[in-house]
Amino acid sequence: MTPTTAATSAPGRPATRTRTMKAVVKAAAAPGAEIRDVPVPTAGPGEVLLRVLRAGVCGTDLHIWSWDRWSQGRIQPPVTLGHEFVGEIVERGAGVTNLAIGERVSCESHIVCHTCIGCRTGNAHVCENTRILGVDVNGGFAEYVAVPAVNAWRSPGNIPIEVAAVMEPLGNAVHTAFAGPISGCNLAVTGCGPIGLFAIGVAKAAGAARVFASDISPYRLDLARKMKADAVIDVSKESFVERCRELTGRAGLDGVLEMSGNPTAVRDGLAALRSGGRLSFLGLPKEPFDLDWNQLVIFKGATIHGIIGRRMYETWYQMHNLLSSGRLDIRPTITHVMPMERFDEAIDLLRAGKAGKVVLVPWGEEG
Amino acid sequence: MTPTTAATSAPGRPATRTRTMKAVVKAAAAPGAEIRDVPVPTAGPGEVLLRVLRAGVCGTDLHIWSWDRWSQGRIQPPVTLGHEFVGEIVERGAGVTNLAIGERVSCESHIVCHTCIGCRTGNAHVCENTRILGVDVNGGFAEYVAVPAVNAWRSPGNIPIEVAAVMEPLGNAVHTAFAGPISGCNLAVTGCGPIGLFAIGVAKAAGAARVFASDISPYRLDLARKMKADAVIDVSKESFVERCRELTGRAGLDGVLEMSGNPTAVRDGLAALRSGGRLSFLGLPKEPFDLDWNQLVIFKGATIHGIIGRRMYETWYQMHNLLSSGRLDIRPTITHVMPMERFDEAIDLLRAGKAGKVVLVPWGEEG
Amino acid sequence: MTPTTAATSAPGRPATRTRTMKAVVKAAAAPGAEIRDVPVPTAGPGEVLLRVLRAGVCGTDLHIWSWDRWSQGRIQPPVTLGHEFVGEIVERGAGVTNLAIGERVSCESHIVCHTCIGCRTGNAHVCENTRILGVDVNGGFAEYVAVPAVNAWRSPGNIPIEVAAVMEPLGNAVHTAFAGPISGCNLAVTGCGPIGLFAIGVAKAAGAARVFASDISPYRLDLARKMKADAVIDVSKESFVERCRELTGRAGLDGVLEMSGNPTAVRDGLAALRSGGRLSFLGLPKEPFDLDWNQLVIFKGATIHGIIGRRMYETWYQMHNLLSSGRLDIRPTITHVMPMERFDEAIDLLRAGKAGKVVLVPWGEEG
Amino acid sequence: MTPTTAATSAPGRPATRTRTMKAVVKAAAAPGAEIRDVPVPTAGPGEVLLRVLRAGVCGTDLHIWSWDRWSQGRIQPPVTLGHEFVGEIVERGAGVTNLAIGERVSCESHIVCHTCIGCRTGNAHVCENTRILGVDVNGGFAEYVAVPAVNAWRSPGNIPIEVAAVMEPLGNAVHTAFAGPISGCNLAVTGCGPIGLFAIGVAKAAGAARVFASDISPYRLDLARKMKADAVIDVSKESFVERCRELTGRAGLDGVLEMSGNPTAVRDGLAALRSGGRLSFLGLPKEPFDLDWNQLVIFKGATIHGIIGRRMYETWYQMHNLLSSGRLDIRPTITHVMPMERFDEAIDLLRAGKAGKVVLVPWGEEG
Repeated sequence: MTPTTAATSAPGRPATRTRTMKAVVKAAAAPGAEIRDVPVPTAGPGEVLLRVLRAGVCGTDLHIWSWDRWSQGRIQPPVTLGHEFVGEIVERGAGVTNLAIGERVSCESHIVCHTCIGCRTGNAHVCENTRILGVDVNGGFAEYVAVPAVNAWRSPGNIPIEVAAVMEPLGNAVHTAFAGPISGCNLAVTGCGPIGLFAIGVAKAAGAARVFASDISPYRLDLARKMKADAVIDVSKESFVERCRELTGRAGLDGVLEMSGNPTAVRDGLAALRSGGRLSFLGLPKEPFDLDWNQLVIFKGATIHGIIGRRMYETWYQMHNLLSSGRLDIRPTITHVMPMERFDEAIDLLRAGKAGKVVLVPWGEEG
Repeated sequence: MTPTTAATSAPGRPATRTRTMKAVVKAAAAPGAEIRDVPVPTAGPGEVLLRVLRAGVCGTDLHIWSWDRWSQGRIQPPVTLGHEFVGEIVERGAGVTNLAIGERVSCESHIVCHTCIGCRTGNAHVCENTRILGVDVNGGFAEYVAVPAVNAWRSPGNIPIEVAAVMEPLGNAVHTAFAGPISGCNLAVTGCGPIGLFAIGVAKAAGAARVFASDISPYRLDLARKMKADAVIDVSKESFVERCRELTGRAGLDGVLEMSGNPTAVRDGLAALRSGGRLSFLGLPKEPFDLDWNQLVIFKGATIHGIIGRRMYETWYQMHNLLSSGRLDIRPTITHVMPMERFDEAIDLLRAGKAGKVVLVPWGEEG
Repeated sequence: MTPTTAATSAPGRPATRTRTMKAVVKAAAAPGAEIRDVPVPTAGPGEVLLRVLRAGVCGTDLHIWSWDRWSQGRIQPPVTLGHEFVGEIVERGAGVTNLAIGERVSCESHIVCHTCIGCRTGNAHVCENTRILGVDVNGGFAEYVAVPAVNAWRSPGNIPIEVAAVMEPLGNAVHTAFAGPISGCNLAVTGCGPIGLFAIGVAKAAGAARVFASDISPYRLDLARKMKADAVIDVSKESFVERCRELTGRAGLDGVLEMSGNPTAVRDGLAALRSGGRLSFLGLPKEPFDLDWNQLVIFKGATIHGIIGRRMYETWYQMHNLLSSGRLDIRPTITHVMPMERFDEAIDLLRAGKAGKVVLVPWGEEG
Repeated sequence: MTPTTAATSAPGRPATRTRTMKAVVKAAAAPGAEIRDVPVPTAGPGEVLLRVLRAGVCGTDLHIWSWDRWSQGRIQPPVTLGHEFVGEIVERGAGVTNLAIGERVSCESHIVCHTCIGCRTGNAHVCENTRILGVDVNGGFAEYVAVPAVNAWRSPGNIPIEVAAVMEPLGNAVHTAFAGPISGCNLAVTGCGPIGLFAIGVAKAAGAARVFASDISPYRLDLARKMKADAVIDVSKESFVERCRELTGRAGLDGVLEMSGNPTAVRDGLAALRSGGRLSFLGLPKEPFDLDWNQLVIFKGATIHGIIGRRMYETWYQMHNLLSSGRLDIRPTITHVMPMERFDEAIDLLRAGKAGKVVLVPWGEEG
């Protein structure tokens, strides 16, 4: 890599500017994705260039691959996918002094404006000008990725590399759990996809008295058991509300971490809350749905939180402490680690519901 | 009144035990209400007997009068109506020592169990065993009413008697406003019935930067102006969302106090929120309705609070301070003061939408 | 026991009214305490009579035994000591319906007025008219004790009886920990007496990332290790501030749970906090002491909470969940269980610093 | 001004690069300050250059002028003084796009690192690497000043220019008040220097029920009256604690905004709090002092907040709303507006205690 005047780079590395790299690119406005040779990016002012070490595959990647309606309205091909990753800093752009070449960092995926009212009042996670890595700008399913230095979170060596790769979605789980009381609470997680599975571990590590988990997939419920849910509820076979009442000595739940977007899960979650409880709502519903507001929200004094992204960077600090102390172990959720080259196979696993979290290994990182 | 061994009563008063009193009674499972002679109640252990000085009429009274579906499922005639009132203590039941004969008190209408998990954790307002004065037990549309001493809130003399009569619904407005940040905030009140009108005054007295009010009734919008709303929005004629954006310099609202139960008001209220804002939801919808959860709640990190009753008794303390200091003046909302004898006329005014708050004067209190 | 008209009692029990019981009584305004025969109390209106099953000895009991200045100003002999205990309900006073004869209950020791501004605004734990069991009114170092029914907290069978005996001081630890953020935090407990030891367990069960504990007594530090403190700091040998900086990767502590009342511990605790951290202060200093407010509080935006008693009854609910779920195990802190008859020996152990928590077994409960 | 390649500047302005400007400079390590000709600064990357319109004089300026111990340890002459000011943007450094040439902005004085744990967790106001304008880097007592664009807060035209000049210290008052409950509360402000006077106005505008103010200076108490304190307490003549009890109907204060740093004011403030109240502590004590922690903090469950700076930028948003809505008017506190040339005279006024807030008008801005 040939350093520019402003940027500094790792000694002994090949000049990235003069070569290309492999990347998983959404190349056309149609289903699918391509593995392509693209130019290696450069660290602009305030940015760092990372050599990608590991990357996680998300349901959003599946949406983009499938070219669903949301993707059609949002994605402007060509764009390199991947918004969950860990990398090593190989170049620093102008003005970056707090991070060093060679440090391992995980990444916040939201690139925010720092100037809107949200950003200015502690709500950067709902910045109205957010651009997302791997969605709006080139992401981390590649050998290298450039990110704002402020988005990089130093990752200590005692966090396993596969875990460091998925701190972005883990942060969603932390943000959801930490949106209300956890310590000493009886909580339920509705929906045991990867973020739901993370949330089980997070809620337990963060001091919930009991964590119950619901889903309809035996595969996912089994993963929930591996994450040490105090009870798993197969809502295709038993009543969520009844089971939760029973499991809480008829007191009701203190909180629900909603990870499914499923209307029945939301309604049952609210019904199972004790008076004054909270439902923190991260799962995206496919379409609008109705509630019996009187019975489910007003008469019981319930609170509903809409949750998106991660608090920047309180959530990262909390997550960092939980992981680096060893309190939280999410490895049971990582069911597959495979070469990035086999991205299409990862997509197939997700579509078939036969995976928890899938982590990809970029070209040249296999060793 | 003949004092029992345990109870103490005001000297010089007639023996209430030996006579009857007038009361507005829901006498039968059918529309309407009757003015009847009923026995004067007694202060049981832990109770006080009040001579009613003034009482407010509520939309709930209209529902009971009309004998709607909710009333049919809840009310067990005969019951004396009236859950908003101020009275003078004329008798103290056994064990009551903190209140004196002759004191003027306003009343919390929720009689709670003190033993359920809600009551035990600071959420008595959502007690699962709540009985409501004038709904489940005899209320204050009468010459006398017996209430638990704990439900009585001492009312200083500088609070006008008509205001002291309606602290129960005023408390709903205070509870809604105080459910989230107020100071320095731009808030909207959606729905300008009596509680909405109160909420305008409360939000301004409690330090909102600006308070906007919406409705479709010119009569109510005019009352909103009298309560000094910074802007009134006739949503039959203009866009709530557009107006709020304009009035906040495009920042959006910090909070919405929802008093209408109207689906469009709720959706527009959420749409007009800034990211991270809150909608505190007191108005009861007539039936379930849907939301675009993604756009209105999740992507903007909004919070929805279900609100019922009043915090017991933080809300009363806050309300007391606002009123007794002179910061809050709700007199413009009290459009009618009339004899309790003319209860049916009060109901007619409410049905016609030609009243703000109606206050009734019991028999013998006219002077 | 002969039931009165109003009270109900357990069938088959001897008539308590007609006999006396043994009790540990502060009999005179001088050091010491006596084991005496005193009348068995009765459950008054709203009270329950408990057969005491186990009781904990507290530092306050030592103060009273020693007849220190505080005791001389507060205690009015004769009074039965003991404010930490678990018992079985054997009689219910008039009006008590939510508890049944035969239920096992732990007890809140603060008997509050329910009418002062503290009680009315969710701060009953700082009621200005508090009377304390075993201090101001007869307590639980006896065969029977009468307590307000509202002070009784139903104790499920899976909580060991010695643990159920000490929920009152455990509640102090829970209250202190829950006064600020716990989940994912790096916390320190300064002072490893029984409440400090409890606090280590509570903070870990409630989701702290790491909990460090400091003291100067090897005996107590050893108990701290048994409570699974992540590090113990012998402040007679090493610098608290330096160690905490090192243990937190130089970030500083998120919070300190101050259990010693020692001026150096408080100052060091504040110095070790990160900016924006909190020190929750339960340990009672022996006399006033000074702080460098600028460096320790203002420039770092620290918060200091004064903590007393337990939130009534949020703290009990949290504690109940932590214990009944098995998350929290405080048995390592209970170093001695002995007959109540040997109360003086328990006092000797406390004076010698050779005990964690001492639990007493009343007469007739040994089996 | 000759624009560089990266920066953009106002058309028609003289080339600032080629000329000097007047400034109030701490020129030497000794008492006093000089008016000097210094080079006009340039807007570096991420900065804006402001033409200063008005600037406020602060007690800190007096400390620096006097060359007290704190100044000797902190200030590195020569440095241009002035950390409170409003200016017009005349040049934008590289990368600044959200602000336009010609906009009027007030300025946050803390230049923070954005990378320490404080900055990363929503506590940038206690950034451990803070540099302060007019203290550590050249400030606003000059014709021009360069500041980070992120520190600039757009000031709407309806805020009077003298008010816009002092938003930095006004933000201290807002931060202190907003550190705990305000709405419906009975608060006291102890110490009526400029920030205390601001706090009276802020607390009232933000919805306090009543605001009491204490000091010993008749001049300042008179200004407190002009700020519409509900009562002023001359603590040289009457008991603060007694008066507050009386003014709150013996309930005690909900909160104290401590602006004096005086030990007696702090102790009396705590003594006058109701149980569960808060003291938010901004005034810097001259030296350490002691408290009776048991009586003043622990037994009453009080909270003490150390307050410094302003929340970046929640405080600015709150302040902006209060000012732009017209709720808050601090003009009575601005007792003097004078040419910057007469800086020494401003210092004399402050030393004599004969001023509220003094605002300076830079050279060429008099018209």
